[in-house]
Amino acid sequence: MDPISRLSRRSLLFLFLASIAQALPQAQYDSLADSIFKTSLKSGKAYEALTELTRTIGGRLSGSPNAAKAVTWAKNKMEEFGLEEVHLEPCMVPHWVRGDVEEAAIIPSGGRKIPVAIAALGGSVATPNNGITAQVVEVHTFKELDELGTKANGKIVFFNRPFDETKFNTFEGYSEAVDQRWAGSIQTAKAGGVLALVRSVTPHLDNVPHTGVMGYADSVAKVPGVAISTLDANRLSELLKKDNDLRVYVKVACQTLPDVESANVVGEIRGTEYPNEVILVGGHLDSWDKGRGAHDDGAGVVQSMEALRLLKQLGLKPKRTIRAVAFMNEENGGRGGEAYAAKERPGETHIAAIEADMGGFMPRGFGVSTDSVRFQRIARWAHLFSPIWADRIIQGGGGTDISYLQRKNVPQIALIPEMQRYFTYHHSDNDTIDKVDERELELGAACLAILTYVLAQEGV
Amino acid sequence: MDPISRLSRRSLLFLFLASIAQALPQAQYDSLADSIFKTSLKSGKAYEALTELTRTIGGRLSGSPNAAKAVTWAKNKMEEFGLEEVHLEPCMVPHWVRGDVEEAAIIPSGGRKIPVAIAALGGSVATPNNGITAQVVEVHTFKELDELGTKANGKIVFFNRPFDETKFNTFEGYSEAVDQRWAGSIQTAKAGGVLALVRSVTPHLDNVPHTGVMGYADSVAKVPGVAISTLDANRLSELLKKDNDLRVYVKVACQTLPDVESANVVGEIRGTEYPNEVILVGGHLDSWDKGRGAHDDGAGVVQSMEALRLLKQLGLKPKRTIRAVAFMNEENGGRGGEAYAAKERPGETHIAAIEADMGGFMPRGFGVSTDSVRFQRIARWAHLFSPIWADRIIQGGGGTDISYLQRKNVPQIALIPEMQRYFTYHHSDNDTIDKVDERELELGAACLAILTYVLAQEGV
Repeated sequence: MDPISRLSRRSLLFLFLASIAQALPQAQYDSLADSIFKTSLKSGKAYEALTELTRTIGGRLSGSPNAAKAVTWAKNKMEEFGLEEVHLEPCMVPHWVRGDVEEAAIIPSGGRKIPVAIAALGGSVATPNNGITAQVVEVHTFKELDELGTKANGKIVFFNRPFDETKFNTFEGYSEAVDQRWAGSIQTAKAGGVLALVRSVTPHLDNVPHTGVMGYADSVAKVPGVAISTLDANRLSELLKKDNDLRVYVKVACQTLPDVESANVVGEIRGTEYPNEVILVGGHLDSWDKGRGAHDDGAGVVQSMEALRLLKQLGLKPKRTIRAVAFMNEENGGRGGEAYAAKERPGETHIAAIEADMGGFMPRGFGVSTDSVRFQRIARWAHLFSPIWADRIIQGGGGTDISYLQRKNVPQIALIPEMQRYFTYHHSDNDTIDKVDERELELGAACLAILTYVLAQEGV
Repeated sequence: MDPISRLSRRSLLFLFLASIAQALPQAQYDSLADSIFKTSLKSGKAYEALTELTRTIGGRLSGSPNAAKAVTWAKNKMEEFGLEEVHLEPCMVPHWVRGDVEEAAIIPSGGRKIPVAIAALGGSVATPNNGITAQVVEVHTFKELDELGTKANGKIVFFNRPFDETKFNTFEGYSEAVDQRWAGSIQTAKAGGVLALVRSVTPHLDNVPHTGVMGYADSVAKVPGVAISTLDANRLSELLKKDNDLRVYVKVACQTLPDVESANVVGEIRGTEYPNEVILVGGHLDSWDKGRGAHDDGAGVVQSMEALRLLKQLGLKPKRTIRAVAFMNEENGGRGGEAYAAKERPGETHIAAIEADMGGFMPRGFGVSTDSVRFQRIARWAHLFSPIWADRIIQGGGGTDISYLQRKNVPQIALIPEMQRYFTYHHSDNDTIDKVDERELELGAACLAILTYVLAQEGV
């Protein structure tokens, strides 16, 4: 307690003046933030753009004709929004197609077939033409599968570990459960199984399968990986308790075609004083073919563009360059993010990269991954977001697409929205525009406009 | 700055120990709050109850057969949830019925009729059997209407002041616009008009009328009051600019029948040490007949009951009594709230009253109206809600039903949820269960459980 009791009046006065000096540049942006919030609620265009993207194009998996249409759409929209230097940055992307057949059924011993809802996981190989029909072993962890020894031989491995619904941070719940989806086929093949049947990675009980990317390893055979809806997973698990000999039939016709050229779409507001210092804000333009990629991640794409449009509408001229990027191929390859980071940009430095890829829900704040000095320099702007209660600036955050810039020591920032509903819709037929609220989406765009602008003016 | 520099080591030590002593009772509740949140996400029953209420009963306007069914339902549900002393507290309520005809059209000069969506406002008289057809004057304020002098004579007065969509606090936007709905008919009659046609009080552009209560004054004639959808209001306003002579036709068949006996539904967990000190938590059971009263206020009713059920499930025995009340007639009379406060309860004191009537969205915190000492004693619990980022405890808050307890100096507390979507659905056909998210609703109930319990243990 000594330091406090020893404080002289002079040093207290100094601290007081220093705190005022520090507060000054912060305070001047408060009324600007207020204008941006109000403008976004009155005449924001993110929701209109998202409606267009999801209704006229829809799902847009990398390599698909819809993804190509989305690239053209994004370029046109950035131009319509008045962004500068709008251009495409090409990249090669994987081209996986779902095919025209997806069917599955539980076949109880001596009973009648029960159809169940499934979806091939992204990257999966097909089943043979007549499908796969086999007995099932249910496991919850890879360790459990290991311990089965040869018992999984020739069988379908049913990965049924539920998403931990008690996690308030649903992204934590997701990351704890998603290993089954990513590595289920690899582990199944290692155990001699014939197909990985994976419980959909969602805390929600519903009858739609939630897809997502899966991997293979060169060292083992490629067996198909499919998602089963949570309700059907529960049902299958119940049936297995009484009837261990039941079989499951699965037929999927997906395949991986040769890579296709696609592109990131890039536009910006050129900085007036330090044009070579860039604040990047982006989302990803590709989506799964299930649903229409409204929250994942049409929302982040339109919010990023709209952030720049709002600044333009208000006549603001940032000192540093603010760049919007609609990344390609976040879902099953990250090739867009990789290509963006790999491209030579002589003289240019990124001082921060922000990704909006957690859904278009009510903004709550930002997550920031960087050193403590730069964290503080970003976190000091929290007050700008307090009028809409979006002022939580926490340690840790980023996004797949911008993660490739991390090796260049660029601070990674995530827009954090309310996160209870995200995985209810995620990667499923339910990710549609009717799940997006206009005011919430526009306020998220406003948060991006405010943060990019203040970082463009004051640096990081 | 003197006080700080004069602090002796002894006094700092004292302050330090005092702050630890104060922190102790607060910290012990952190793990309890965590359990309550997790239990609500894992096995909460609020959503299931709300589904039942809205799907099997639906809209339940005071005095209606549906409202009577809802009273029985709420009593049974409280018993099923294990609440104690479950009983009805009767009150007389108004009985207004919409009738079987609601139609309206814009009749351009010499053009074809354009049908528009309207809904009688609650309490309105009917039009004559053949409806009302008249020219229209558009106004935005009562002052504007006054200034028209005799120009409104014999005309329909069209109140078209929009909800201010730039307000982040949508309840503020609502309260600024709702005077048109409440007093539109009175002001119309004063000006010699024949019907008040009121723009729906919502920031959302949609084609459904949003109803709500309206008033009459004894001193002037009773003219009908009807809501027009926001899209049709915009259309009418556009048409009026070009065609000032157009007429509007409105027919409604609503009427007010004699008062009906109904009831508040009450259940509790009896306090073990101070049973006569009561913490009340409630919502209102009645709703408008449009939609199914999911967010307004089925949500608050099921969350209040569920709060007590959660405490029961966890085996918690509060020192003070926690009482859940499903109030009747918030929407068009407040008779339930009035009756609750008027009832003699010998020896009993209410130490706090909490109302959940701002929708079943993600909880953000609480609004508290009381003196500064009791405000601080309530606000010190904010940290219990920080695990789910619902820790904003702000000055100002309450609810219509509990407002009658204010004269007894009982602190008024509102559960504050995310508020961007509330008025999109409010009082319209769109207030249905599919607009409610299960996790968000259950977390709101958990917040009520935590706050009621900690106040029951530690007082206010």
